[in-house]
Amino acid sequence: MSTSLKWGILGCGRISNDFVMGLQLVQGAHVVACASRDLSTAQTFGQTHDIATCYDTYEALCADPAVDIVYIGTLHTLHHPHALLALKHNKHVLVEKPIAMNEHQLSQIVAIAREKQLFLMEAMWTRFFPAVRRVRKLLKQGILGQIHCVKADMGFAFAANADRIWKRSLGGGGLLDIGIYPLAFVSMVFDEEPVHVHATGEISKDESVDIYAVVTLHIRV
Amino acid sequence: MSTSLKWGILGCGRISNDFVMGLQLVQGAHVVACASRDLSTAQTFGQTHDIATCYDTYEALCADPAVDIVYIGTLHTLHHPHALLALKHNKHVLVEKPIAMNEHQLSQIVAIAREKQLFLMEAMWTRFFPAVRRVRKLLKQGILGQIHCVKADMGFAFAANADRIWKRSLGGGGLLDIGIYPLAFVSMVFDEEPVHVHATGEISKDESVDIYAVVTLHIRV
Repeated sequence: MSTSLKWGILGCGRISNDFVMGLQLVQGAHVVACASRDLSTAQTFGQTHDIATCYDTYEALCADPAVDIVYIGTLHTLHHPHALLALKHNKHVLVEKPIAMNEHQLSQIVAIAREKQLFLMEAMWTRFFPAVRRVRKLLKQGILGQIHCVKADMGFAFAANADRIWKRSLGGGGLLDIGIYPLAFVSMVFDEEPVHVHATGEISKDESVDIYAVVTLHIRV
Repeated sequence: MSTSLKWGILGCGRISNDFVMGLQLVQGAHVVACASRDLSTAQTFGQTHDIATCYDTYEALCADPAVDIVYIGTLHTLHHPHALLALKHNKHVLVEKPIAMNEHQLSQIVAIAREKQLFLMEAMWTRFFPAVRRVRKLLKQGILGQIHCVKADMGFAFAANADRIWKRSLGGGGLLDIGIYPLAFVSMVFDEEPVHVHATGEISKDESVDIYAVVTLHIRV
């Protein structure tokens, strides 16, 4: 890796905005381009964050030889095609969570990244929280003793008009959005894979998206 | 029911002690007899609580015509035979939790109590907590809105030498002891039966008693 990594931002929405603001604090990281389906959206984003090149197609961003790594901040359902697009252009990729809509999509992305030896990661930011790293360390040192039970939860009252979360076609449902955080927390602090997974919850009647879920992981530590 | 109810206390251990102290605050309740396998234990208990008659057999207590209702505060594994004994003598029965060791034992006790039209209850005291009654009321009134998830838990670090809890022959294991409290809480505040029950946990290697458990009840409210 060069001392300077040049980023292209695919998707100019709120999450990309937050990401770029964070990236400005990282030494050696430079945002060189951004892209939106709408040029004016890309240009506004570019002005806000002082980004030199603004595209109105994702293809153009991924084809830009100045870009080393593409950050994908589009809708859930588009993560898979956009990751494929970036990998096709031999770019490293950081994809917002969820990295894909299902295991099949994920396997495909991972296979291509491995074949091309490109960096690929889901942007599960909580993994890098100092608090999480600290818990991992304490667990490894045995300071917390034998762990019998970990409870992790996250709840959020989404507005009825927040279409994205309620619509299946937009990758809606709780688990793909915030439900993954408590699950990810457990996977972060233990190295062991669960030996048994059980889930129960409720599916919305109109759109069949998960409204809530309780997931029990049996992990032998 | 007469205005005065005469209690016989079967078993003179710690839990019976706590129960009788509580009973002294109940109008119309009178403890008229107690029994232990050891007469001196029964006599000490009788002196402490000002109980007129002390027996050295449970049979004698249950046969005492002065007794209306028998409280059973013996070891878990003895609840079933002692409840049968009291019912045989046509006494009403209040049994410490767990009322029996398994469903088969419970069915037997319930059948006899129904047949003889005797009062039979497990002493799940938390059911009568004002706080629990209040929660029930709030739920029924819909003040708390739609309930998606209830989390209830209880943990306790039992001493390694607390034989009763660790030994299968003594009715050990977490669920029969304190694990029932969070489960009972959920059954107290909802009227609906679970449509699905899932449990996972850990069984001790030496005695095969449950050390901890996570139980997920899916209740359609």
